[in-house]
Amino acid sequence: MIARTNMITRLFTFAAMLVGIGQVGAQNLVALPKAALKQSDTPEKIELGKKLYFDPRLSATGTVSCNSCHNLMEGGDDGRATSMGVNGLTGPRNAPTVWNAVFQASQFWDGRAVTLEEQAKGPMVADVEMGMLGHDQVISRIKDIAGYTNDFQIAFKNDDAVTIENAVEAIAAFERTLITPNSALDRYLDGDEHAMSETQIRGMELFESIGCTECHSGPALNGWDIGSDAEFVEFPRFDTSPFVQAYDLATDLGRSQATGDNTDDHLFKTPTLRNVTLTAPYLHNGRVSSLAETCRLMASTQLDVELTDREADDLTSFMSALEGEFPEMTFPRLPSRSGESVIQAKVGSAINDQS
Amino acid sequence: MIARTNMITRLFTFAAMLVGIGQVGAQNLVALPKAALKQSDTPEKIELGKKLYFDPRLSATGTVSCNSCHNLMEGGDDGRATSMGVNGLTGPRNAPTVWNAVFQASQFWDGRAVTLEEQAKGPMVADVEMGMLGHDQVISRIKDIAGYTNDFQIAFKNDDAVTIENAVEAIAAFERTLITPNSALDRYLDGDEHAMSETQIRGMELFESIGCTECHSGPALNGWDIGSDAEFVEFPRFDTSPFVQAYDLATDLGRSQATGDNTDDHLFKTPTLRNVTLTAPYLHNGRVSSLAETCRLMASTQLDVELTDREADDLTSFMSALEGEFPEMTFPRLPSRSGESVIQAKVGSAINDQS
Repeated sequence: MIARTNMITRLFTFAAMLVGIGQVGAQNLVALPKAALKQSDTPEKIELGKKLYFDPRLSATGTVSCNSCHNLMEGGDDGRATSMGVNGLTGPRNAPTVWNAVFQASQFWDGRAVTLEEQAKGPMVADVEMGMLGHDQVISRIKDIAGYTNDFQIAFKNDDAVTIENAVEAIAAFERTLITPNSALDRYLDGDEHAMSETQIRGMELFESIGCTECHSGPALNGWDIGSDAEFVEFPRFDTSPFVQAYDLATDLGRSQATGDNTDDHLFKTPTLRNVTLTAPYLHNGRVSSLAETCRLMASTQLDVELTDREADDLTSFMSALEGEFPEMTFPRLPSRSGESVIQAKVGSAINDQS
Repeated sequence: MIARTNMITRLFTFAAMLVGIGQVGAQNLVALPKAALKQSDTPEKIELGKKLYFDPRLSATGTVSCNSCHNLMEGGDDGRATSMGVNGLTGPRNAPTVWNAVFQASQFWDGRAVTLEEQAKGPMVADVEMGMLGHDQVISRIKDIAGYTNDFQIAFKNDDAVTIENAVEAIAAFERTLITPNSALDRYLDGDEHAMSETQIRGMELFESIGCTECHSGPALNGWDIGSDAEFVEFPRFDTSPFVQAYDLATDLGRSQATGDNTDDHLFKTPTLRNVTLTAPYLHNGRVSSLAETCRLMASTQLDVELTDREADDLTSFMSALEGEFPEMTFPRLPSRSGESVIQAKVGSAINDQS
């Protein structure tokens, strides 16, 4: 694993040279881009994706939307240790934030989806999340909602446009708008040396000097080499750390559960640290409520460093410099199941049917 | 009950004379007001109320907000027969719309809350809805969320402002903004004779001539005499109607379950018909999916009238003229539980505690 994380450092250093980072004390950090759209992400696709993202009717019970566990009014997560899906069922891992997910090399804690599109397919049909029986049922549900067919036709310029591939493309297009630039760190990196407090700068210097940036680098502080295995790191790495037992860190085998390859045991995707102050509780199992405690835990298990209270506070303060600007968003109007479709359709009467 | 509904008609006729309704064929209908705020509803209270309305952390599991069952991106309801609250539990009745609820004389199907403020207290502590153990727990939860205390202090100009009374006052202030004026009917009543189609006008005339307006009158088409018992009607009234058994209409005793007075058996609040095309399924038990079928059912059980298919279609078409304009709304940013509070607080470490 050390080889893999060193590879990140090398790649990062190379990339950092290319973009010419110069701010003192921030050698391994870069500002978040202010846009992440693909050329094919039209306003119509984004708006459709927003509707689908917020529509609880894409779940078996009609109660769980993407936003239920990845709440855009909060940190893009749900504030729970593990998420609660349909019928009160809970999953095994903590919901990662959707904010800046476009800058992740892969999605899910085990990285089993490489793209946002592939990720979006998962929860719809996971029995403890949205609980649909299959993507055919999802599409059938969408087709039952008058208004969506038209939205799909306009977004994809195709009469037969209501497909799962188009649905997740629209959701991903919307998710590519979910970025939070202009954090204190970003403004600092852009040259405003007063953007961060002294404590935050001290925390940033510590973050670099003890080696956090070996993994938490790049614009989202989640590993730089997007698209490769390099984003995955062994966790816990120093398994004699007392935190391992205290927070049950060795039970979940991580990536190997997705790949079936036991050389992937205990590998986890490096999560973004953007807005991490807003996404308690922490870790893949959501067992740690305090961010300072999480900093101690990560230093101990990954770097074999025991932090003082002041160092943990400084690091936590630096994390607060990673809170970005959240775009102002308007609510979508979700198309109705009834409305015109009921009005126009010849609706049978239970009474008439009986007579 | 006939006496009560006749009283509505009389009161309505009097009120209609006062406001000088003149459009031909709309003797018993009035336009929806374009504002409903109280003088004490400041922008700060409204914004705080919006946050609370959308905050799932006010539920036991952190998964159910007011908006879960009264979804403002849809018809202000949840599209389910009966709502699903925490842990997958379901309640006994269909969620009424929150849109234009300010124009209801009382809230809940049995009218057990007279004000929006009183209504807002209920679901938080109902075990099948938001499931909190009591309002003390709600307030304790709100106080745990950094940011809310400041919001309450600003909205209520008081240091010790985080109280349940203030919380529901803020929610009610927000709900008083949830109105949908300028429907086709409203524009028609304001003098635009082309605002409604011929079918809609025919449906409106039928709506008045067969007696629907005996109960469905006033700006929200839900009874006129706001604040009195007159809004409650017997349902089903003609209990030999075949619809009664087909849709299990006689089981729920309605208002008497709230008052404990068996003279209130089978009384229900007259619901608003504004945006009714968007709030399927219908009735207190959510048993009817089709609006045309609901029109047949109501005519049969309440007026002893059997509608033809064309009449049911005309009435349904008139209902589509009741879809109003939904205000464009921006998402609130919900205050974080962690953030500064974690950063500033001295956080104990599980490891330090053990040593």
